[in-house]
Amino acid sequence: MTKAAYTPRQTPYSLSPDSELNDLRMSEQARPLFDHVKRFIRDTVDPMSVEYYRLDATKKDRWGFAPGQLECLQKAKDQAKAEGLWNFFLPDAESGVGLSNLDYAYIAAELGKSPLASEVMNCSAPDTGNMEVLERVGTPEQKKKWLEPLLNGEIRSAYAMTEPGVASSDAKNVSTTAVLDGDEWVINGEKFYISGAGDPRCKIMITMVKTSPDAPPSKQQSQILVPIDAEGVEIVGPMHVFGHDHAPRGHMHIRFNNVRVPKENILLGEGRGFEISQVRLGPGRIHHCMRTIGKAEKALDLMVERGNSREAFGQKLALLGGNLEHISRARIEIEAMRLMVLKAAKAMDVLGNKEARVWVSMVKAMVPEKACRIIDQAMQIHGAAGVSQWFPLSELYTDVRHLRFADGPDEVHHMVVGRYEINI
Amino acid sequence: MTKAAYTPRQTPYSLSPDSELNDLRMSEQARPLFDHVKRFIRDTVDPMSVEYYRLDATKKDRWGFAPGQLECLQKAKDQAKAEGLWNFFLPDAESGVGLSNLDYAYIAAELGKSPLASEVMNCSAPDTGNMEVLERVGTPEQKKKWLEPLLNGEIRSAYAMTEPGVASSDAKNVSTTAVLDGDEWVINGEKFYISGAGDPRCKIMITMVKTSPDAPPSKQQSQILVPIDAEGVEIVGPMHVFGHDHAPRGHMHIRFNNVRVPKENILLGEGRGFEISQVRLGPGRIHHCMRTIGKAEKALDLMVERGNSREAFGQKLALLGGNLEHISRARIEIEAMRLMVLKAAKAMDVLGNKEARVWVSMVKAMVPEKACRIIDQAMQIHGAAGVSQWFPLSELYTDVRHLRFADGPDEVHHMVVGRYEINI
Amino acid sequence: MTKAAYTPRQTPYSLSPDSELNDLRMSEQARPLFDHVKRFIRDTVDPMSVEYYRLDATKKDRWGFAPGQLECLQKAKDQAKAEGLWNFFLPDAESGVGLSNLDYAYIAAELGKSPLASEVMNCSAPDTGNMEVLERVGTPEQKKKWLEPLLNGEIRSAYAMTEPGVASSDAKNVSTTAVLDGDEWVINGEKFYISGAGDPRCKIMITMVKTSPDAPPSKQQSQILVPIDAEGVEIVGPMHVFGHDHAPRGHMHIRFNNVRVPKENILLGEGRGFEISQVRLGPGRIHHCMRTIGKAEKALDLMVERGNSREAFGQKLALLGGNLEHISRARIEIEAMRLMVLKAAKAMDVLGNKEARVWVSMVKAMVPEKACRIIDQAMQIHGAAGVSQWFPLSELYTDVRHLRFADGPDEVHHMVVGRYEINI
Amino acid sequence: MTKAAYTPRQTPYSLSPDSELNDLRMSEQARPLFDHVKRFIRDTVDPMSVEYYRLDATKKDRWGFAPGQLECLQKAKDQAKAEGLWNFFLPDAESGVGLSNLDYAYIAAELGKSPLASEVMNCSAPDTGNMEVLERVGTPEQKKKWLEPLLNGEIRSAYAMTEPGVASSDAKNVSTTAVLDGDEWVINGEKFYISGAGDPRCKIMITMVKTSPDAPPSKQQSQILVPIDAEGVEIVGPMHVFGHDHAPRGHMHIRFNNVRVPKENILLGEGRGFEISQVRLGPGRIHHCMRTIGKAEKALDLMVERGNSREAFGQKLALLGGNLEHISRARIEIEAMRLMVLKAAKAMDVLGNKEARVWVSMVKAMVPEKACRIIDQAMQIHGAAGVSQWFPLSELYTDVRHLRFADGPDEVHHMVVGRYEINI
Repeated sequence: MTKAAYTPRQTPYSLSPDSELNDLRMSEQARPLFDHVKRFIRDTVDPMSVEYYRLDATKKDRWGFAPGQLECLQKAKDQAKAEGLWNFFLPDAESGVGLSNLDYAYIAAELGKSPLASEVMNCSAPDTGNMEVLERVGTPEQKKKWLEPLLNGEIRSAYAMTEPGVASSDAKNVSTTAVLDGDEWVINGEKFYISGAGDPRCKIMITMVKTSPDAPPSKQQSQILVPIDAEGVEIVGPMHVFGHDHAPRGHMHIRFNNVRVPKENILLGEGRGFEISQVRLGPGRIHHCMRTIGKAEKALDLMVERGNSREAFGQKLALLGGNLEHISRARIEIEAMRLMVLKAAKAMDVLGNKEARVWVSMVKAMVPEKACRIIDQAMQIHGAAGVSQWFPLSELYTDVRHLRFADGPDEVHHMVVGRYEINI
Repeated sequence: MTKAAYTPRQTPYSLSPDSELNDLRMSEQARPLFDHVKRFIRDTVDPMSVEYYRLDATKKDRWGFAPGQLECLQKAKDQAKAEGLWNFFLPDAESGVGLSNLDYAYIAAELGKSPLASEVMNCSAPDTGNMEVLERVGTPEQKKKWLEPLLNGEIRSAYAMTEPGVASSDAKNVSTTAVLDGDEWVINGEKFYISGAGDPRCKIMITMVKTSPDAPPSKQQSQILVPIDAEGVEIVGPMHVFGHDHAPRGHMHIRFNNVRVPKENILLGEGRGFEISQVRLGPGRIHHCMRTIGKAEKALDLMVERGNSREAFGQKLALLGGNLEHISRARIEIEAMRLMVLKAAKAMDVLGNKEARVWVSMVKAMVPEKACRIIDQAMQIHGAAGVSQWFPLSELYTDVRHLRFADGPDEVHHMVVGRYEINI
Repeated sequence: MTKAAYTPRQTPYSLSPDSELNDLRMSEQARPLFDHVKRFIRDTVDPMSVEYYRLDATKKDRWGFAPGQLECLQKAKDQAKAEGLWNFFLPDAESGVGLSNLDYAYIAAELGKSPLASEVMNCSAPDTGNMEVLERVGTPEQKKKWLEPLLNGEIRSAYAMTEPGVASSDAKNVSTTAVLDGDEWVINGEKFYISGAGDPRCKIMITMVKTSPDAPPSKQQSQILVPIDAEGVEIVGPMHVFGHDHAPRGHMHIRFNNVRVPKENILLGEGRGFEISQVRLGPGRIHHCMRTIGKAEKALDLMVERGNSREAFGQKLALLGGNLEHISRARIEIEAMRLMVLKAAKAMDVLGNKEARVWVSMVKAMVPEKACRIIDQAMQIHGAAGVSQWFPLSELYTDVRHLRFADGPDEVHHMVVGRYEINI
Repeated sequence: MTKAAYTPRQTPYSLSPDSELNDLRMSEQARPLFDHVKRFIRDTVDPMSVEYYRLDATKKDRWGFAPGQLECLQKAKDQAKAEGLWNFFLPDAESGVGLSNLDYAYIAAELGKSPLASEVMNCSAPDTGNMEVLERVGTPEQKKKWLEPLLNGEIRSAYAMTEPGVASSDAKNVSTTAVLDGDEWVINGEKFYISGAGDPRCKIMITMVKTSPDAPPSKQQSQILVPIDAEGVEIVGPMHVFGHDHAPRGHMHIRFNNVRVPKENILLGEGRGFEISQVRLGPGRIHHCMRTIGKAEKALDLMVERGNSREAFGQKLALLGGNLEHISRARIEIEAMRLMVLKAAKAMDVLGNKEARVWVSMVKAMVPEKACRIIDQAMQIHGAAGVSQWFPLSELYTDVRHLRFADGPDEVHHMVVGRYEINI
């Protein structure tokens, strides 16, 4: 092969430099909302959070709320709804504000910096994904019963997918079964890491089950609505994330013991479980990444603040050894991640979730891993305090570390991106 | 500069290829003990641990023990002592078994695989360091009062060094003061991450204080024995490590409010705090690293077991994507770390702690960082279960992550190694 | 610190989500040019390059051209000029096409994929930087004499900055002196890695010298035009880059032995050397990064092609071990780098070179390092052939590796970014 | 799984802490030799090298030697032989000094620091591997004809294994054929990167061919002695390594066009090619790694020297930014690699090449990759000079980078280690 004869392969990523795909500006309409959200977090959510956590420290039952705690939260939620800061996440939908994914990406990064902001504005996972699914594929009855109260923030929900006994990275491994018996599905199996299922306000679970073992591998699964108080739903206990149980929301370990739900609780129809996953996973995954940008930014802020305010060996920590380079690298990676998330969001807006799926896998494989490293570096400059309850860093770390296998582990997303690249 | 004219600088590391420094064999005498320890862990400590943690889950007061829990532990300790598996860590000492650092390194790696083995054989931090210090620099009265019950495993102890208000990576920053008032030291200040101080059996703290603010920077500090029940010792609460509080041992936040202890509680004398640190830190640091080898080995074992027992996409996990290479890299790094720890231990045996300090800094900077990466990789192959309470991985991770700043952050140890290399 | 009370620091990067800074689309006017350039490379430059390198292999004198070689190149240059594919790099300038930095970024990535395309379209370094400097700060006489023939591609030029005897990462270290003697500057000193100075067509060097040793450190330097055939300019020999001498362009080692040039050859005036650097370095650095995107893309293309076309152990190489993940990671990093380069280019367009300098440092610190890793990975999948003359990979590698210290080493750019972040 | 119930898998690496495997001391007998070698390099090889390279720069024909150049080298070789510094590499052999692998490992690290020392003491690749093979499996006639002159340093040799058309990482892919025609093997095919085949003194090639296409995959290959001047051996030209052709030794591209050699030129017998590889590859691979330790050490020496002798921004380079940490990390990795190489060498001595093969794969996968990073870092601190011909760094880099696929790419060695670990 001579140096010049090489003809580069056409890749979809490099096409159309003047395409609107490359316009990553927030829309003008969304800008006031963005500013409003930032103000609201500063003026309402942050002060409320101080009170919320003060009360939280007083509670007797880890799996409930302290007197006044829920009211304090609800008041902020009411105010958010009143101010129109509500349900941003639903793109181009009748319900919700109808932000584009791109506009939401900017806002979600702000939400990510606060532990309570997402919930206050009814934008927290897994409710967002569940609402999106119900909005897209729910029957009018399903919407009435579950989507409405979710959109109103009156109830919360869970998504029951991961199972302890199989490698859930391959969704075809799902082993919980649902068998039709008369007018009811009878569900048996075991799920774990069902986030939010510990919250007393959680009422409904979208549950991935195997209904059609004889169909082709990707048509065997269905998704069924299971009320959390259905008979036979046994909440075995909370799963931990690095020792956190995240009570009262929790990541619950649940057994389905002959749980019966009406036939019409199935979403979209038998064997269409994967199809529904496509609806939820694109947005779900990118929402996580959007918020993670905010978390990484927060970690960098803390790293800078600590590096500037402490001294050792006669120097500011920020100027000792490789610390300044760590700070620079964190900034560079954050800006690169931010642009990638914006681009993926724009791709979803312009190309649709299906065509944009490789972009989504790119950011899902990129962002949590890099953000973990930034938060870890921020911890290190804090010394022991970095892993303490005095700083949000260890909680940021465990949240983001957990993302490296939630909604598809890094490895699966790299597989998607790699296979697309080699065209097989 | 021509290619050939270059004359390499002499480095101390490459000298004497036939020196006994390179003989990393366990001694023949220690071998039966090593086998005994492994047998004892398998036959006694492991079954006891199952019972201990079963009881632990039943306890009402996090900061105490469940009925029978302490007895269960004590029984194993008595048996260990009866079998001569006790106090291995004190090298060449009259008390203790008198193992060399090298021999102990092999044993400590085994201890590191079990959460309770170290304590059962009276080899757990910070008691080991405290006993070593008392043995070396204690007065007969100090030994009688504190070393004996520690050597017997009757009480436990803490080491109060790190402070929340300053960068403790530079030990000269210590700000807790001790002022002589008549026959008593009056101590004021604040410490945190005082590991083990929550344990009801903890009776004594070796406390780093500033006694001589007008002396040269490295002569201002002293170490003083402070009984934990002295008036004015206020245990503010537990510090967390990634959300773990490690009750009941804990990592306590402590205030010293005009705490008074007798003049003779000082160790070695005024202004000799750093000198004592040299005694404790070499062994303390390397013991951590020795145990970490065992922890990394355990993580690799789990990674292999999971990789061999789960399937996705029609393959064992171990054979998917880069997993097999991750396993290989983990094995390679573990063996490299093991040899480095052994070499550093041997250097302490042959050259003494002072001359060996660069070796100790090398392993302290190397081992926790690499072990973290191995444990993290093991987590990833486990999916969500990897961060759960069902596997020891998240606890291994947080333990080892915490080591990256305990006893000198990585950065300080790299500074020691780097300065030695450039000869300044 | 409570979890919620934390108020993030304002950073300049996150401001104005709806600002035109985030519109990374190529302009509509530039789009046809972009397509034209791609066509021209495919149809004209690539076939010409085959012939050019065939002739190159026949030449007797490494430091000259083979018969017909220059004509072959010149013909393509004439055609490029005739088709208007010429001097894209000068943003908003009277001379040149007047592309914005953003538009040029897209084009430069294409140029980067071919070893000769930049020169054919008169866009190759260091001529581009030299022309930009002359255009901005040259006197009418200087422009007439040097800028015009450069813009016409009749001559080539060099930039004499780096010195063998001092750490050039700190530009204040420059030690070559120029002393005014009557109407002439008398220059003495030594420079190396003067790229392009071996080319028989190279006529002029912009030379960084110290003219004012008593001025403040950043006012001591000046830049002076030195004809390469001036008496006293001694070309000591070529410097190598990983064994390549890149003849006939070369990276020359040059001594200035009492070289005399007219007083008016100084640019802008005495002591203004750094000021001029600001003009050249922003664009120069980012042009390198733009082209590097193309080089990384080319490496990935080759990696995919090799991975798809060879087999071992019964599998395509692309599917063996971690290779697919390497491919995915390369794609992700390339897209992230591309967006960062586009953003920095846009920042230069919107904010001006000075305000955009942190963005430029970000991409200069990010892109060559990451691109090196991608090219290295591509090499590895090629086995021995990857470092051979049969593939462009080793040349891509050495080019890009060299960028990690040319125009400011990575470390200095991280220092710029880090200092900005900590605000000192 | 409870925390305590876990029983670690037995691994072969952790067995027998008191085994002689862990005694990494050079033998007492070898110590004087080691000192002798170091002295000889300093007093004889280094000065000779200056002269050798001075002459090299004067030569007309890249593929020959300058007048006097070979004599200069030969004189040093004669002296080495006279002083008994000759053929160290053959362990426990009748010919050769009979050093153990462990003893040789210490010496080879010294050889690695000099570009000519290995050859001067008749210890350079691929002659060493070829001699070892001939010694072990050669017939008396083969030994007489080829081994003797090789042992005497009168001729040199090559090993023709890698092919341009297939993935050579899987040795079963070999496609060069040898067909028995009467009393002769008729060989057809193409090989490349045949190191040393350009040297006018190279007389013989051990050539891997496919002789038995119908046998099981690992029994199809044979190794045959092919004189380089046999009719039909066409040396197409030199392959480059990052632009170096390493003339006059070269890495040649060779075609076998109906090359005929006598039937008895086969080694060991038909279909036994892989078996012979096992003989050569263990030692060959580890010799490379041993020398690489010396190369990495040399790079670190240069990094320290540069870091200590240049200043920027008012500081020694060694103290700027993360440089001191880079130095520390390099030292740590070098010591870890050294111990691993010693352990693998000892494993070969104690367990035999076959049992030690996982250890060899461990160091082959570990050492070149890490050494590349160290050399690269050393380059970076040198700035442009780091990649120049003024320092040996770029040559060290390309040598060691090349090792990452020579004798089995990193990936294959990780596969060996990983498979062993998961026991499949």
